[in-house]
Amino acid sequence: KHVVLLPGDGIGKEVINSAKDVLHAIAEEFNHEFSFETHEIGGAAIDQYGTPLPESTVEACGQADAVLLGAVGGPKWDNNPSHLRPERGLLGIRKALDLYANLRPIKGFKNLLHASPLKEEVVSGSDLLIVRELTGGLYFGTPSERRDNGQSVVDTLSYTRKEIERIVDKAFQAAQQRRGHLTSVDKANVLESSKLWREIVEEKKAQYPDVTVEHALVDSTAMKLITNPTQFDVIVTENMFGDILSDEASVLTGSLGMLPSASLREDGVGLYEPVHGSAPDIAGKGIANPVAMILSTALMLRYSFELEAEAKLIEDAVQSVLDSGFHTSDLQISNGRLVGTAEMTKHIV
Amino acid sequence: KHVVLLPGDGIGKEVINSAKDVLHAIAEEFNHEFSFETHEIGGAAIDQYGTPLPESTVEACGQADAVLLGAVGGPKWDNNPSHLRPERGLLGIRKALDLYANLRPIKGFKNLLHASPLKEEVVSGSDLLIVRELTGGLYFGTPSERRDNGQSVVDTLSYTRKEIERIVDKAFQAAQQRRGHLTSVDKANVLESSKLWREIVEEKKAQYPDVTVEHALVDSTAMKLITNPTQFDVIVTENMFGDILSDEASVLTGSLGMLPSASLREDGVGLYEPVHGSAPDIAGKGIANPVAMILSTALMLRYSFELEAEAKLIEDAVQSVLDSGFHTSDLQISNGRLVGTAEMTKHIV
Ligand SMILES: CC(C)[C@H](C(=O)O)[C@@H](O)C(=O)O
Ligand SMILES: CC(C)[C@H](C(=O)O)[C@@H](O)C(=O)O
Repeated sequence: KHVVLLPGDGIGKEVINSAKDVLHAIAEEFNHEFSFETHEIGGAAIDQYGTPLPESTVEACGQADAVLLGAVGGPKWDNNPSHLRPERGLLGIRKALDLYANLRPIKGFKNLLHASPLKEEVVSGSDLLIVRELTGGLYFGTPSERRDNGQSVVDTLSYTRKEIERIVDKAFQAAQQRRGHLTSVDKANVLESSKLWREIVEEKKAQYPDVTVEHALVDSTAMKLITNPTQFDVIVTENMFGDILSDEASVLTGSLGMLPSASLREDGVGLYEPVHGSAPDIAGKGIANPVAMILSTALMLRYSFELEAEAKLIEDAVQSVLDSGFHTSDLQISNGRLVGTAEMTKHIV
Repeated sequence: KHVVLLPGDGIGKEVINSAKDVLHAIAEEFNHEFSFETHEIGGAAIDQYGTPLPESTVEACGQADAVLLGAVGGPKWDNNPSHLRPERGLLGIRKALDLYANLRPIKGFKNLLHASPLKEEVVSGSDLLIVRELTGGLYFGTPSERRDNGQSVVDTLSYTRKEIERIVDKAFQAAQQRRGHLTSVDKANVLESSKLWREIVEEKKAQYPDVTVEHALVDSTAMKLITNPTQFDVIVTENMFGDILSDEASVLTGSLGMLPSASLREDGVGLYEPVHGSAPDIAGKGIANPVAMILSTALMLRYSFELEAEAKLIEDAVQSVLDSGFHTSDLQISNGRLVGTAEMTKHIV
């Protein structure tokens, strides 16, 4: 399997090495062969090529079986014009590879739950998966422009039926693999696009009789994620709502530095990245938490390569290293042992 | 001053009486005169007139100095086609009266903070005001329609410069009256409308040198509201982001049943309503919490009638009744006394 590595910026450059180390260990243990190729994206690409997403990066990713991405962004590029900002690289590669399904599993680690802003009795036991549509909606709809000499502006939230169908199917299938409950989130009391979304979910549900479906409004879901996060299993929603709700959900368990994500194409090719950002404040110090990157690598094995046992082994290794009390400086474990990126990775390996 | 009462549905019909009782007491105490007129909106209007917003209601509100609204909605109308749903009445009256500025102060009550899903050390001391644009954006932009024989759909997020300017001014002014900090929330790394929004905030800030301004992305704000709610003073944002973030914020302090809102026009005419809904499950039982409605009435006195002392007196009365331990069934106060809507109102009066 051929893997393209996109370290990106900040701690992305550090944690990507952890992914590689873990894959080497997996290759050895299971007799697999992974080949690697590294390319630039984000700020690093702006510095080197004058664009956040060089053609060479797109081409390499287009030929890969999967892509691992560290993180993009940093203060150096914060005041750039928008086509020269690091996150354009991210948006561009999602669209170029047609990575329509963003999966974000959010589950707390028992020994880290104390870091949650929520009371333990509220958050304990929560285990949800957000399935976010990633290549449509307000992010890519046209027109998106100034009008009337700059006196007005429009953005466009557009979806085709096919775009909604494929993400809804993905979510139903994910629910079948989990606890069989799907919450479809929309704003059907206001948006025409949400009404079509709701209709499609209703049409599809006959195909998945083992999944119970519930429709919820985005505003009320934003409340319930906080007051009752354990009520959710799989949440499916459009791009912008997914952006907001998945970030909201990511802080519930107090384990932001531990959360992976997968962005998938229909044929299973995918891009895998930590939920956390490039953390410029701690970049280059060797103290970044590699766990989100390593768990993203596990998702790659599971979703793109269908290597479930290998994925599970990585996840178990992370859990057991935490159980042994090892942790990076973003975490606290009582009676634990503070280690840097390399040592944390070594223990997991 | 002439006040139109729109009880609406469910517990709206009950708590609206509490508003009236409180206004009678204020009138007597301060020698004011308030006249009242009651009209239908929402489900009640659908039942009686076949539309959630009868012309007669719009006309009456158009002539009022202020409008008090209870709540709209209920299971009876949940499966109606969208033009016959109760919330259409709410959206319609906002637009008809040009109520562009939705203000939602969110502050916990000390003796209720224990009901928060957040840890006390996280939420304690939080006191924020969300200023939401209410008559533009995705809610009212056109086109909003099916296309290609139902194979695709669009909604439109549109704003004029003037619409953004007036809400941003409102928010700066609110910040001046409070702790002088404004967080402008957008998605400027993706949306053209957000870029214009950000530009306008930048242009305006010279006019308000006593206010410090910060720009934040909607996704990261959804996180920070939970991890660090005390960092916010005034938040200003567009309609849909405001819908999501204000609902999210409303559950932080554990006092959802206590939260008022104001929706204002440029000349000060406003509509005031509780943040909570029509609560069909407890409607008609005389047990609804009237505090959000009563505090909405205080906001009416403050914003539409400029009766600050009167508004403050109501707010102090609510606090002192809570301090005495009186509470409705949605709340718990240790060693408190459980009362119904009427008795809670009587104590506040
Ligand atoms: C960086 C930004 C454009 C991106 C998004 O909004 O999708 C990010 O917030 C994410 O969720 O991956
Ligand atoms: C009922 C609904 C249309 C409304 C909105 O989305 O504005 C409500 O959620 C609110 O926040 O007042």
